[in-house]
Amino acid sequence: MYTPAQLQEVIENAIQNINYPAQPEKLYAPIRYIMSMGGKRIRPVLTLMAADLFEADILKAIPAALAIETFHNFTLVHDDIMDNAPLRRGKQTVHEKWGINNAILSGDVMMVEANKQLSMLHSAILKDALETFNATARGVCEGQQLDMEFEQQAIVSIPEYINMIRLKTAVLLGGAMKLGAQVAGADHNEAEQLYQFGLNLGIAFQLQDDILDVYGDPEKFGKQVGGDIIANKKTLLLLKLKELASAEDLRKLEAQSTNKDHTEKVKHITGLYNAYNIPELAGIEMRNYADKAFDALNAVKVPESRKSELLELADLLMSREH
Amino acid sequence: MYTPAQLQEVIENAIQNINYPAQPEKLYAPIRYIMSMGGKRIRPVLTLMAADLFEADILKAIPAALAIETFHNFTLVHDDIMDNAPLRRGKQTVHEKWGINNAILSGDVMMVEANKQLSMLHSAILKDALETFNATARGVCEGQQLDMEFEQQAIVSIPEYINMIRLKTAVLLGGAMKLGAQVAGADHNEAEQLYQFGLNLGIAFQLQDDILDVYGDPEKFGKQVGGDIIANKKTLLLLKLKELASAEDLRKLEAQSTNKDHTEKVKHITGLYNAYNIPELAGIEMRNYADKAFDALNAVKVPESRKSELLELADLLMSREH
Repeated sequence: MYTPAQLQEVIENAIQNINYPAQPEKLYAPIRYIMSMGGKRIRPVLTLMAADLFEADILKAIPAALAIETFHNFTLVHDDIMDNAPLRRGKQTVHEKWGINNAILSGDVMMVEANKQLSMLHSAILKDALETFNATARGVCEGQQLDMEFEQQAIVSIPEYINMIRLKTAVLLGGAMKLGAQVAGADHNEAEQLYQFGLNLGIAFQLQDDILDVYGDPEKFGKQVGGDIIANKKTLLLLKLKELASAEDLRKLEAQSTNKDHTEKVKHITGLYNAYNIPELAGIEMRNYADKAFDALNAVKVPESRKSELLELADLLMSREH
Repeated sequence: MYTPAQLQEVIENAIQNINYPAQPEKLYAPIRYIMSMGGKRIRPVLTLMAADLFEADILKAIPAALAIETFHNFTLVHDDIMDNAPLRRGKQTVHEKWGINNAILSGDVMMVEANKQLSMLHSAILKDALETFNATARGVCEGQQLDMEFEQQAIVSIPEYINMIRLKTAVLLGGAMKLGAQVAGADHNEAEQLYQFGLNLGIAFQLQDDILDVYGDPEKFGKQVGGDIIANKKTLLLLKLKELASAEDLRKLEAQSTNKDHTEKVKHITGLYNAYNIPELAGIEMRNYADKAFDALNAVKVPESRKSELLELADLLMSREH
């Protein structure tokens, strides 16, 4: 069995070995640029871990893992255009460096590259893999659409919010795991359990992100604590507060939303969160999804010993302070 | 055997029957909008004609035809953003109607939809079909990139220009035909001949477009005659003129490029074209590619009688005055 760190290295090497065409240089340079930015490669690692769980040769799952990682990076390129983001992992975003038109088109060709990778899978499982991949890709686009719409929308319910993060973030983790299971020849039920594992872990992870944005260790968090508060971002915390707060506190919240003094704003709104036990309530919601994830993994019929790496990775993801 | 008109109807019906999800409404409405704008549906018709050529059940080729048409429409949505185009077929473009971000994302999900369509093909030919489709999609993106670069580039050679239109326009016609042949179970050589037929016909068609933009019947052309001249567009005519013109005539051409009086500009530059026999020379180049197309179709080993509809369609395309 492989550790996540070993699989990360396998993925990095595989990415280095992708041969994009040399010309047109401006079409392919952005792909090399974003694909080599690094990151934890969590999605393709999950694909390989799922294959490894069923004792498959992980090399067989590499095309699926690369398809997932390429697709993920394609969404970063296009999302950064839509979000008007200047930086990604501390570096210029693709559209900042090459212009918006170039970023649209390089993103498009990344989607083609992802499909090319996927099509290298064995014929016998190709149709199932395509179905998983396309359903996943569709979900991610739907999630991004909802995310953009929610920014403009006055009222968003918590179920609507969870549905958005499910689509935007979690289905890709679920899809990554399911693809690995399919490559390994797991039966439909086992593949579905792994999908549920990835999906619910993804939701839990995103909810944890909302909590850490306010309550994370500023030393370890790596970005500004309270960034979501400053941006008036509709997170689980904010939506829960809106559900529970008195009319007077809602007025205070509203008044803070336009406060230009960011330190004051974060202090006041965090105070409201504390007064309504929001971090505890959000923690319960988060653990609810984490539990669902672990239940799904429990239900997978392979020897328990084979699940150790996945369990450890999930524990690690869910106990981070940053 | 089916006529192009019959197949057009088959395609229209199949497009009407595609079930896109209802939600998020703003993600899928643009897809319905652009897919129902009509047009000649030439690409999916070619896919079905290629399948019909080999006496295959054309219904089997519908997923491939829809994938091609959906991909084509996806490129229109994204190209219109890049070209800043307000209108398409006399109607608002998707980004004008729904905004740029929405248009990027709806385009992205169209690419997913195209892949979903394709994945419905029979398992036995799926891998070959994916290879054709992805190579085609990659080529189209490369062509769009070159087209954008050529706009900024002072010098473009005729071979570079032909390579650009080959990628941007012609590979999709070639790919459409090859997919039809693959669905029909044609062998590799026959599929390749049909690819060459579509590819060369596509190049000839685009070169004819360049000629008709200046020399087409204004009554029938449907757009402003001389539009390419007014926009200083690098067409085969302009590139040939730049190759052949004397230094003095090149200076005249240069002076006209900034002429704000469009009627005068079209008149003067058309005069230069005529002085250097550019329409005849461009016509020779165009027929050269048309001949290659017909040679490729000739080489396909099916009874000549089965080729009649394709020959007629190609004749029709190449003898238009508008």
